Amino acid sequence: MAHINLKNDLPGIRGPMAYSPETAKPLNELAEILLHDDTNTLSRGEREMIGAYVSSLNDCFFCQNVHGSMAQHYFGCDMQTIDGIKKDYSSAPISEKLKALLSIAGSVQKGGKYVTKEQIEEARNLGATDKEIHDTVLIAASFCMFNRYVDGLNTWAPQDRELYVERAAAAFKADEGYANVDVYK
Amino acid sequence: MAHINLKNDLPGIRGPMAYSPETAKPLNELAEILLHDDTNTLSRGEREMIGAYVSSLNDCFFCQNVHGSMAQHYFGCDMQTIDGIKKDYSSAPISEKLKALLSIAGSVQKGGKYVTKEQIEEARNLGATDKEIHDTVLIAASFCMFNRYVDGLNTWAPQDRELYVERAAAAFKADEGYANVDVYK
Repeated sequence: MAHINLKNDLPGIRGPMAYSPETAKPLNELAEILLHDDTNTLSRGEREMIGAYVSSLNDCFFCQNVHGSMAQHYFGCDMQTIDGIKKDYSSAPISEKLKALLSIAGSVQKGGKYVTKEQIEEARNLGATDKEIHDTVLIAASFCMFNRYVDGLNTWAPQDRELYVERAAAAFKADEGYANVDVYK
Repeated sequence: MAHINLKNDLPGIRGPMAYSPETAKPLNELAEILLHDDTNTLSRGEREMIGAYVSSLNDCFFCQNVHGSMAQHYFGCDMQTIDGIKKDYSSAPISEKLKALLSIAGSVQKGGKYVTKEQIEEARNLGATDKEIHDTVLIAASFCMFNRYVDGLNTWAPQDRELYVERAAAAFKADEGYANVDVYK
């Protein structure tokens, strides 16, 4: 049971977002720009993967499965592959550039000061632009917020991971974004 | 020097916000609602203090001084009092309710799952409403994002704390918010 009376029985972040629509608006707008906007040179799958990875480091079941399922659909892989990336991205079948960005994201999860010049240089040497590094830092930072919002209020989450995969498939098919529709169903 | 070329020499979060105005917009809107909006039953000083406290736990010099200075002006105290609250809120001259909310904020800073039912009950027994508990969790979570955005990109910050106090005094006098004007000057 959530720590406060959210006046709804929606799972994960949907509960507090419905409880507090005035803060949900900028939160969803931020997610839309960071994860879904197509002017970004990082693919949607790469950005969802960064969010899912940080959520796994923060042990947030809801967020890592919502965004892991989205990454799975964008990548066209299965959830075992996503689990493998979360567990050990360095040996996963992803680009070296994404590995470098996940390394930066992992440091941001610990704290901003853990990001090193060497990590930035490595990412740049592998083709990452300044904008992509900026977005990686902000995506990782924002999931440190989203994860804490979800778990700090002790929201509930469906335990059947297949439900997240099915929901992501529907969102993928409908090309839903974060700003105008609720992808957290 | 910042990890990426921000194309400006603005301090702290102002640098990446000017670099990326499309993400600055929802970030500032979120700060406006959480910290400045007057429909909130927590005072502006209390909310700025929660942000300053979490920023101190995250060791973010820029944010803890921007928001500590704002709290100081709203409270009408000096910076030593703010430093004392950050160091040991339990013995500080603040309300028992704010102490309970700072306790929750401190747990959110560690991770959402560190918040306990006992902390929520304590806050509620001291008069905190569900909305105030919700906002405390989201303010604390959002500063875990803002702090990581500032330090994850290695932005620079003025080291003279008096500059933050002077800036806060001007913002306080002008009753500036976060959404329409830049209070991070």
